[in-house]
Amino acid sequence: MTEIEIGRAKRARRAYSFDDVAVVPSRRTRDTDAVSLHWGIDASKFEIPVLAAPMDSVVSPTTAITIGKLGGVGVLNLEGLWTRYDNPEKVIASIRKLPEEDATREMQKIYAEPIKPHLIEQRLAEIREAGVPVAGALSPQRTVEFHDIVVKSGVDLFVIRGNTVSAEHVSPTGEPLNLKQFIYELDVPVIVGGAATYTAALHLMRTGAAGVLVGFGGGAASTTRTALGVEVPMATAVADVAGARRDYLDESGGRYVHVIADGGLGTSGDIVKAIAVGADAVMLGTALARATDTPGNGWHWGQEAYHAELPRGNRVWVGQVGPLSEVLHGPSRHANGHSNLMGALRKAMATTGYSDLKEFQRVEVVVDPTA
Amino acid sequence: MTEIEIGRAKRARRAYSFDDVAVVPSRRTRDTDAVSLHWGIDASKFEIPVLAAPMDSVVSPTTAITIGKLGGVGVLNLEGLWTRYDNPEKVIASIRKLPEEDATREMQKIYAEPIKPHLIEQRLAEIREAGVPVAGALSPQRTVEFHDIVVKSGVDLFVIRGNTVSAEHVSPTGEPLNLKQFIYELDVPVIVGGAATYTAALHLMRTGAAGVLVGFGGGAASTTRTALGVEVPMATAVADVAGARRDYLDESGGRYVHVIADGGLGTSGDIVKAIAVGADAVMLGTALARATDTPGNGWHWGQEAYHAELPRGNRVWVGQVGPLSEVLHGPSRHANGHSNLMGALRKAMATTGYSDLKEFQRVEVVVDPTA
Amino acid sequence: MTEIEIGRAKRARRAYSFDDVAVVPSRRTRDTDAVSLHWGIDASKFEIPVLAAPMDSVVSPTTAITIGKLGGVGVLNLEGLWTRYDNPEKVIASIRKLPEEDATREMQKIYAEPIKPHLIEQRLAEIREAGVPVAGALSPQRTVEFHDIVVKSGVDLFVIRGNTVSAEHVSPTGEPLNLKQFIYELDVPVIVGGAATYTAALHLMRTGAAGVLVGFGGGAASTTRTALGVEVPMATAVADVAGARRDYLDESGGRYVHVIADGGLGTSGDIVKAIAVGADAVMLGTALARATDTPGNGWHWGQEAYHAELPRGNRVWVGQVGPLSEVLHGPSRHANGHSNLMGALRKAMATTGYSDLKEFQRVEVVVDPTA
Amino acid sequence: MTEIEIGRAKRARRAYSFDDVAVVPSRRTRDTDAVSLHWGIDASKFEIPVLAAPMDSVVSPTTAITIGKLGGVGVLNLEGLWTRYDNPEKVIASIRKLPEEDATREMQKIYAEPIKPHLIEQRLAEIREAGVPVAGALSPQRTVEFHDIVVKSGVDLFVIRGNTVSAEHVSPTGEPLNLKQFIYELDVPVIVGGAATYTAALHLMRTGAAGVLVGFGGGAASTTRTALGVEVPMATAVADVAGARRDYLDESGGRYVHVIADGGLGTSGDIVKAIAVGADAVMLGTALARATDTPGNGWHWGQEAYHAELPRGNRVWVGQVGPLSEVLHGPSRHANGHSNLMGALRKAMATTGYSDLKEFQRVEVVVDPTA
Repeated sequence: MTEIEIGRAKRARRAYSFDDVAVVPSRRTRDTDAVSLHWGIDASKFEIPVLAAPMDSVVSPTTAITIGKLGGVGVLNLEGLWTRYDNPEKVIASIRKLPEEDATREMQKIYAEPIKPHLIEQRLAEIREAGVPVAGALSPQRTVEFHDIVVKSGVDLFVIRGNTVSAEHVSPTGEPLNLKQFIYELDVPVIVGGAATYTAALHLMRTGAAGVLVGFGGGAASTTRTALGVEVPMATAVADVAGARRDYLDESGGRYVHVIADGGLGTSGDIVKAIAVGADAVMLGTALARATDTPGNGWHWGQEAYHAELPRGNRVWVGQVGPLSEVLHGPSRHANGHSNLMGALRKAMATTGYSDLKEFQRVEVVVDPTA
Repeated sequence: MTEIEIGRAKRARRAYSFDDVAVVPSRRTRDTDAVSLHWGIDASKFEIPVLAAPMDSVVSPTTAITIGKLGGVGVLNLEGLWTRYDNPEKVIASIRKLPEEDATREMQKIYAEPIKPHLIEQRLAEIREAGVPVAGALSPQRTVEFHDIVVKSGVDLFVIRGNTVSAEHVSPTGEPLNLKQFIYELDVPVIVGGAATYTAALHLMRTGAAGVLVGFGGGAASTTRTALGVEVPMATAVADVAGARRDYLDESGGRYVHVIADGGLGTSGDIVKAIAVGADAVMLGTALARATDTPGNGWHWGQEAYHAELPRGNRVWVGQVGPLSEVLHGPSRHANGHSNLMGALRKAMATTGYSDLKEFQRVEVVVDPTA
Repeated sequence: MTEIEIGRAKRARRAYSFDDVAVVPSRRTRDTDAVSLHWGIDASKFEIPVLAAPMDSVVSPTTAITIGKLGGVGVLNLEGLWTRYDNPEKVIASIRKLPEEDATREMQKIYAEPIKPHLIEQRLAEIREAGVPVAGALSPQRTVEFHDIVVKSGVDLFVIRGNTVSAEHVSPTGEPLNLKQFIYELDVPVIVGGAATYTAALHLMRTGAAGVLVGFGGGAASTTRTALGVEVPMATAVADVAGARRDYLDESGGRYVHVIADGGLGTSGDIVKAIAVGADAVMLGTALARATDTPGNGWHWGQEAYHAELPRGNRVWVGQVGPLSEVLHGPSRHANGHSNLMGALRKAMATTGYSDLKEFQRVEVVVDPTA
Repeated sequence: MTEIEIGRAKRARRAYSFDDVAVVPSRRTRDTDAVSLHWGIDASKFEIPVLAAPMDSVVSPTTAITIGKLGGVGVLNLEGLWTRYDNPEKVIASIRKLPEEDATREMQKIYAEPIKPHLIEQRLAEIREAGVPVAGALSPQRTVEFHDIVVKSGVDLFVIRGNTVSAEHVSPTGEPLNLKQFIYELDVPVIVGGAATYTAALHLMRTGAAGVLVGFGGGAASTTRTALGVEVPMATAVADVAGARRDYLDESGGRYVHVIADGGLGTSGDIVKAIAVGADAVMLGTALARATDTPGNGWHWGQEAYHAELPRGNRVWVGQVGPLSEVLHGPSRHANGHSNLMGALRKAMATTGYSDLKEFQRVEVVVDPTA
């Protein structure tokens, strides 16, 4: 770790984003056919290492089913429009039409509608019936209130996702979520995050989580650096948390906690780099929001965009490239890294001579910030 | 300190601006309610660590009162329009309307009007009557001439502010301000600056100042780097002066001189970073000029903009986001770091696990210049 | 080699592109007349170190002849339009007219037409008859199928070119090309690549190749970094492969394998830098596509642009500057590094005091990424 | 000197441009009145350290007189339009009106007109009669041919200026200029350059030159980096040559050779930085071309722009700010560093506590490439 002196009373560390790095070929190449993208967490096995982010513009029960059939898993936001409204399609259509200047304010109102527990059950059931993996997400704040109904609904993966989730939340007023006890008592594998540092991730791993989300769910829909001054460039964050995975594997005598990059993954190249610096899988928001068959229909927003007091993201137009099947598996008609994401990952692995994801975490990487 | 060789006959030091750095979460998180933003300097206590910069586009007697009620302190420019004109509102309205190409020239004429001592008294009295903290600023050049009337008017904070203020000004012709003797004789706490280096700040601390301004009052309204080649990137400047605070605390046997970042603070993220690298409080110009109830009404300018011989800033349009109350305390309707500045600071501290400003100076920081 | 810690579980190396570096004058200067650009590989001798890239927008039999007469060598793409169509001019004209949004899709169709072996023979014969050096290129995938007919057609240089070509391709299904055996059996000098690292290049050298292409054929027509996350900045790649040349020279007891930079060479300045960091010659695509007498007529595209599943490049408009003679030898009417490429190389060598290409590989170089 | 590994076979050095650096205040400040800008070279004494560059868009006999009266010295280009045409004003007017696309080609024709020796004499006489310092420039190529007439005309300073001038020019055909002998035999102080490295400058100093120009005359009118790949970032070049000055001072037992920055000096901030890293004076092109009373009238071009074979610069529109008197001495009506250049230098020196140019070479400097 290179320490930098900012000034006499402050030292810092150099950190790297995906844009700062690139993957380098080795002396071997492979056929793309010979590359496997299989990934599994606990009992769940997936053909591709992709979780769709629990954002209303990306995952509806319908797209969760589509994504499941395409080999990944769609994580439904259990405190979004699908659990607040009986007929969320209409609400989403209205969000898409909001003029720029009113978008934040109007979304703040729309999301003020209370969450209906029966809708949580109903939406998850809809996905389960299609025979694909079922996954739902809550924020740490809502987990105590709604986890019973989620578990009862029979999820394969339970995601607890916030901007920053720590194993040690201090609250002088309420009773904060005791993650360790909570995860211990649950029957389903829990994925928890965002975490962004070695220490924070190590503590989350010790709570018994099956996976840790790395990042703030950033990217196109987030302005955390501008608004909060907070950021951990993703390449460094993933590589640090991969270090925590290795150390926790030793400390726990063999428990492998999955590292899932969540944020800053706008192109297939970014996905490649995330795995290359240590991720086991990726959680995609923007990259999938560009599909023609997602609810946002080219618009994209996250929880930060409708925060009641301090919005830190925007409803953004991310464009459209084709159906989810094309976005994930091609064939591609563009060279911008927006479609055939898995084909590109496969090609990058083949080009650099690797045959599975775990091996590919060892690929050589260079830093070239000016590219 | 890393020394860099520019060339055989010159060495330099790497310096960092706020844009180069970001704050990193720790393993703990907190409720935002559990975060305190209290700050105090000598006998004065404030709910938020904010001084409004003595610039005519930001602080009038009226906005000084508003800002005082919102928990901070507005510093009135005592050699600006409010002490040159009986009716400055009219003059300001005319400045706002100046066409781009004439702005500098016309402002040079407007500010040629002499300062009226009785207006200094009258403006400060107006603020005092509202029951909020009273603070006024003079340049070092004017301090000898007008300090008597300022002190007599009963200020809580006396600010001596110039582009660069040193404890050791050399003047072959006139009698320069002897800061040490001057501050000793005054009865009120004095904040003095800008200083930008460890040594310059240490010497200012030894004059008996209660606080030191760090920076050149830069940002949107200043072009010092282009015109003078002079700059000290703010993150390094604040961290250096925080180092001087620590060393002077020891040298003086316990006198804590406050470090106030002044310049480069355009967004809530910048304010977060200023505290994170060592500032006790911030002096805001641009960030407050965006309020709808400041005199500039979206226009902003500093003393540099109307310098008679060598203007080094411009009258700039900074846009508008809402009233001062919303700029400082929200709720925010935008995600650009321009409103709810204090909510953002609170959130950043909560997210990274800190509960008061002094603790937050220890938060971890990373460098990522390409972000 | 400076190793950088990306994060706890990943280290990387800093790499440099041509934009990051510049050449520095020494204490000597020379007349440009006193500079030689001669280059030779095996029995072939050339007046200038330029191979035209096997891209349909750059090399037709006609332009191969022109380039040969101008002192370089045009490498014909043997699996492009000239060997798929009897009358490719018509097809190329239609490609130039494709609207932006359909270009990739339509080119995917056009290039689906099968390759005709007799056209390979016919096109190469046409070049040979003009009395200039004959060179043709195949991808590794096609080499097994078509190399017989190529060799029979009597080429002076045989180029095997892919995005990444390794000496050790792993294919579970087909029988991959055994480069070593293949090159051994051939009678003509083989140039093979792209390679981008020391190790990959060293292994290619051991196959008996006469030259190694460095790069991915990148530049204007490629988006490999965005789509695949793969990149080796060119200055580092060339300098690394030049290191492999030096080490292989020793290991082989004197076999000098030529290093040919291929990609990122958009201006005469880039060509200068490629030689300066160790290249023996350059393969030019974009830089020649700007000539008025190339097939693309200002449009440019590579194999990546019409890949059936995963296009990683675009048909791009590169503009036009004059005939090939002017592009290569001037006189120049512009100062943008787009014409008189060889005059500029000569001038750069004269200015810095060098008289031949091999010596110029020792010129001093500086890094200034911000320029 | 930090050495960087570009790749296995190439090492380089990090170099810095003026944009990469900034000047830092010290603990002392001064009145601007207390600052001296005096500069002298041999018998010539100047009020300001400014030489106007020998470019036809900047220096005519008339502007040479104006600049002389303003305290600097205008160097007339003795192989430009004033010595090729009896009535150059008309020719210049036609250059200003050339359409963008024809400018280079037409200027190549205009400058093909032969140089008239009698005009050299006549132009220099015109300047001498006004009682200001007389200075003229030739390229190394023309020096042998015309130096007699120049010396006979009675110049105070003789400038030999080319893109790169070395003490050791190798020419297999002609007899190159033997600088050492030539300078020894001349009676006037010679300023020679550009040089850009320690070694090249040291050798030029040993020829007996009174001053060395550092740079390529770059800036707005030059595209050397793009066309030739050649560049030495100016802050490093000046600091290196200042190192040569120091070492030669010792080696020669006390001969102080002046270092004159020539290129990259577009703003007053750049001039400040040039002195700060070691220059004794500056040669200005672009910065003066913005004056309303220069021949270019807002247009600017150098020798590179009309090179017959390989133009490496353009005729560029640099804008206009006011008469030469305002550009050099103000008052300024803008904050962009384009006017009151000397006022800005004085202010920068006062702000950082320095009273003369030689002292100011010791001012502290920081590196912040992202600013």
